[in-house]
Amino acid sequence: MRIVIDAMGGDHAPQVTVEGALAAAAEWKDTHLILVGNEEAIHPLLGGALPANLEIRHAAEVIGAEDEPVKAVRRKKDSSMVVAGRMVREKEADAMISAGNTGALMTTGLLVVGRMEGIERPALAPMIPTLDDTGVLALDLGANMDAKPEHLAQYAVMGSVYRQKVHGIAKPRVGLLNVGTEPGKGNELTKHAYPLLEQLPIHFVGNVEARDVLTGSCDVLVCDGFAGNIMLKSLEGTAGAVFKLLKEQFSKSLKTKLAGAVMMPELRGLKGKLDYTEHGGAPLLGLSGLVVKSHGSADANAIKNAVRQARTALQSRLVESISKEISGK
Amino acid sequence: MRIVIDAMGGDHAPQVTVEGALAAAAEWKDTHLILVGNEEAIHPLLGGALPANLEIRHAAEVIGAEDEPVKAVRRKKDSSMVVAGRMVREKEADAMISAGNTGALMTTGLLVVGRMEGIERPALAPMIPTLDDTGVLALDLGANMDAKPEHLAQYAVMGSVYRQKVHGIAKPRVGLLNVGTEPGKGNELTKHAYPLLEQLPIHFVGNVEARDVLTGSCDVLVCDGFAGNIMLKSLEGTAGAVFKLLKEQFSKSLKTKLAGAVMMPELRGLKGKLDYTEHGGAPLLGLSGLVVKSHGSADANAIKNAVRQARTALQSRLVESISKEISGK
Repeated sequence: MRIVIDAMGGDHAPQVTVEGALAAAAEWKDTHLILVGNEEAIHPLLGGALPANLEIRHAAEVIGAEDEPVKAVRRKKDSSMVVAGRMVREKEADAMISAGNTGALMTTGLLVVGRMEGIERPALAPMIPTLDDTGVLALDLGANMDAKPEHLAQYAVMGSVYRQKVHGIAKPRVGLLNVGTEPGKGNELTKHAYPLLEQLPIHFVGNVEARDVLTGSCDVLVCDGFAGNIMLKSLEGTAGAVFKLLKEQFSKSLKTKLAGAVMMPELRGLKGKLDYTEHGGAPLLGLSGLVVKSHGSADANAIKNAVRQARTALQSRLVESISKEISGK
Repeated sequence: MRIVIDAMGGDHAPQVTVEGALAAAAEWKDTHLILVGNEEAIHPLLGGALPANLEIRHAAEVIGAEDEPVKAVRRKKDSSMVVAGRMVREKEADAMISAGNTGALMTTGLLVVGRMEGIERPALAPMIPTLDDTGVLALDLGANMDAKPEHLAQYAVMGSVYRQKVHGIAKPRVGLLNVGTEPGKGNELTKHAYPLLEQLPIHFVGNVEARDVLTGSCDVLVCDGFAGNIMLKSLEGTAGAVFKLLKEQFSKSLKTKLAGAVMMPELRGLKGKLDYTEHGGAPLLGLSGLVVKSHGSADANAIKNAVRQARTALQSRLVESISKEISGK
């Protein structure tokens, strides 16, 4: 298994990508890791001898968080992200991981790695936290703002296969993000997607309202990128706002400060529960190879976890399974 | 000023509508109130002599929460909601208030009261709570799931005039609900709406992300009904989930129970802050008359507040002002 890591992607790169790669190399001896990036920046962070299953591949350029995605991918052909994508396309690696610019990574997936045959739109599929800690895989939460009903149907199939293969859920419940639970509800997109989803060989549980997503009413949530973003950012904003208010309340008087001291450890746990940045890497589904997006603020542990995730996906032959479902072969 | 109240609309009707009307009649002697509904159900709740400025108008039918909106409005011509709408259309009343079936009320607005000239889509505009307690008027949050850029532009004008006239904000900040703050961001709808909003004689502050809505970054938030619903229900779901988790945490041990006892009154305040059902009635903007939607779970006080709101809107000549802005005359 060969997994390539974009060493320069993310807010804390290359420090955390190198640390994460070293930890992963130590844990999984059967996995060959390739760190792509600026050799001069990477070498001092290695702290001694290179493990036998870790390789450095030099790439002179870096795509930054502020770079315009399509332009950056087209022009920076020697950037760590594009080089990593090319290695996946040319079968030099089985999977790539990047914590870099999300739009650029979507573009790298599309233009460098390439779409899977039969897929119209690859989709970014992060896990959204739920109260029961199982989480829901939501897609698309990537750069495709508008979607057609047929795209949502493909998202449903891809998400369902991912949950089966990578998370071992035998019959993932697939829900459609909507404004009401009845079949006739929604906008033109969801009204037309509903009957398509009903016909698929998946466990479609119908429409799911935004307020029920957190209670874990489905394992896969299908939506267009715009609606998904609105949902995710609302969740993030509300949770953040409530915790901020709580903190203010706790600091009001001596009495509440004491109560706060008792509750704070518990509250931190709660906050982590609702922090979607802590819930692992997001696969980019529908490409001819495996691409995993780590959060921009990923630490070394998150990078290591993304390697774990990529390993599971490769071992379960995720990409081949999705291709089979999509082509119907 | 003549304000008609749908006595039969809402979860607790006619009890709370009658109580609310009595309270409003006592407070505002210059306002003539008309309760429309089943006389036999209303009379026993009046508790004595009818105030001079309160009138009962009998209507035999009721549109229920489960009724299919368009069918109900077309068939139940003698329902309290449709009769109230007809009174507004025929200038027997200046405004109507209903806590009944939202879809049916939107339909009553459209088919019975009638659209304002020049308006393509009337919009439902509730106040969404913000942390600074000022709130944001969001529209459309009604039955129009899909919108065109031109509709969003009209929502912007109507919302802006409402905030000026009814809430006394001299220069309301109008934001466009979107997935990023940069002008080029969004789906086809928001990308095309942005330049239209820039050209309007309003104080357009650009795109507003869902996570920033709660922090009061604008006074009017423009969105299509689908995205608005996703945002609102996410807010509702997350706030509900966090408070549920907190309650669980508080009941964990004696120590946390004591902390909980100290914090509970404060937390209830917080919960109220984020409860959008407590933030008054929502106007249905873009009709030829004034229609105010009270929440289904409205109590007598909420009905009285809706009367206050309708009075302010009538005194400030809201409908005429919107008409002037829309027609450009």
